[in-house]
Amino acid sequence: MILTLTPNPALDVTYQVDRLRPGHTHRVGTVSERAGGKGFNVSRVLHEMGVPTLAVAPAGGVLGDSIRADLEASGVPHALLPVSAPSRMTVAVVPGDEDPTLFNEAGCALPDEDWDRLLALVAQRLEEAGVLVCSGSMPPAAPADLCARVVELARRWRVPVVVDTSGPALVAAAKAGADVLKPNTAELLEALDVPDPVDGARALCGYGAGAVVLSRGADGMVAVTAEGEWRAVPPFAVRGNATGAGDAAVAALSTGVEEQWEWPLRLRAAVAWSAAAVASPLAGSVDTPTLHRIYDDVLVESL
Amino acid sequence: MILTLTPNPALDVTYQVDRLRPGHTHRVGTVSERAGGKGFNVSRVLHEMGVPTLAVAPAGGVLGDSIRADLEASGVPHALLPVSAPSRMTVAVVPGDEDPTLFNEAGCALPDEDWDRLLALVAQRLEEAGVLVCSGSMPPAAPADLCARVVELARRWRVPVVVDTSGPALVAAAKAGADVLKPNTAELLEALDVPDPVDGARALCGYGAGAVVLSRGADGMVAVTAEGEWRAVPPFAVRGNATGAGDAAVAALSTGVEEQWEWPLRLRAAVAWSAAAVASPLAGSVDTPTLHRIYDDVLVESL
Repeated sequence: MILTLTPNPALDVTYQVDRLRPGHTHRVGTVSERAGGKGFNVSRVLHEMGVPTLAVAPAGGVLGDSIRADLEASGVPHALLPVSAPSRMTVAVVPGDEDPTLFNEAGCALPDEDWDRLLALVAQRLEEAGVLVCSGSMPPAAPADLCARVVELARRWRVPVVVDTSGPALVAAAKAGADVLKPNTAELLEALDVPDPVDGARALCGYGAGAVVLSRGADGMVAVTAEGEWRAVPPFAVRGNATGAGDAAVAALSTGVEEQWEWPLRLRAAVAWSAAAVASPLAGSVDTPTLHRIYDDVLVESL
Repeated sequence: MILTLTPNPALDVTYQVDRLRPGHTHRVGTVSERAGGKGFNVSRVLHEMGVPTLAVAPAGGVLGDSIRADLEASGVPHALLPVSAPSRMTVAVVPGDEDPTLFNEAGCALPDEDWDRLLALVAQRLEEAGVLVCSGSMPPAAPADLCARVVELARRWRVPVVVDTSGPALVAAAKAGADVLKPNTAELLEALDVPDPVDGARALCGYGAGAVVLSRGADGMVAVTAEGEWRAVPPFAVRGNATGAGDAAVAALSTGVEEQWEWPLRLRAAVAWSAAAVASPLAGSVDTPTLHRIYDDVLVESL
């Protein structure tokens, strides 16, 4: 089972409008809402692909109730920790042809006791876990060492840990010895202030990460590992919704870690699942025909 | 006691942002939320002015819980009917200096049984009521005769009824014999397709309304009644937040109806409370110093 931890979940609300007109009143046509957060998306993809998973996150207030209800409805196994701080919301305004406009609430700070309880909940379920995934942003005022503590917890339980986060937490996860990190190019350049992202990936391994998979959008991915360095490129560009593509890659990588695939196979799966996620309109889902069409033709080669 | 009915309440969420940039991601600074709906605002103003009131509305889902919690916190007496359809949300994006951008969900349709239960709840509390106020939009797919049924219900209980709505419901309320209607100029012109709004107000009286108070923004108000016609103008323009100004006018008019004030006094109060609401940053609240400064100087004269 792959345990995913989403430290900063949200209820993602999407508003379809004809056109966004600043300063005006919009009658919202279609409203949809969904439990949002990168760890949830990883669990959704795993669940869809038939890989056992458990999504762990804090949830509070009425939006926490909505998050719980949506996970129930989706059938994704989950263990949400009830907390007093209300869960946050994001609003995406989607006009017909234009780019969506996003409003992300930062979220409420959790007291330290809640983080301790959340890590205790993770520890309790680690016994059944083959991999721990920690995905997404940290909430405001989260302990600076939260990500490092998650990595250390997994190492104590001898469970490999895959981390997909950004900023200082990315570097902290490397120093704590995370088995796999999956930054994208922008996240890596921002966190390390290096000119070349592949050098940045190597630097993260130098800090202590077991491997770094760098996602480069339509250009595919690069893996820097102790066993070697590879790059993988999709056979053609897939058009669609890039939100959640990175989460599908993390789902593939963590499956590969759990099933002890060789690195070239992990990277092939990560690129294929990611492209299939772009072809699916919903984040946290992969388009199976695209997956089948692309999988064998992903080009994987040593760097 | 003045009973207010809000047929289509919402949780009003306000996002403070630096600047609205269509197609971009915004980190939301301050988030505030509030039980929204014109009837609730009328009850808030009445409660603040020391006039006994009871706010009645349907409420469902987790946003219904938030609406209930906010009314609890505000101290406004309320009786919310639990319904299965989830309550809706509105989002106001407020950039520093620019006009707010509003996103209004239409809301979910209630089954007919819920409307029957809501009217039964109103009927049950009408015994204690001196005035019934029905304020705000009708939800999608509400029965076409809902507003007329509310008016007829109040008439059956011999309770005067004040209606503040728009579109076909405004005309239906007139035909059903509402005691006071309070359209603004745009609402009246849209509902009746007449060139002159005061003629439109007279037409609504011709349909059966007891009186029509036409609100004209900074130009004050005009009352067309069986006892005569008056206009009232504030002594100076008040700058501020016009949202909720009409609700404060309805609060004043319904207080005047309950306490059987003469029409010129009702109109003076409506203009003064309305201006004092503009001076208050929050809808559903009046700025008391402005109220005291303006009240005696409102110019009221026969048309």
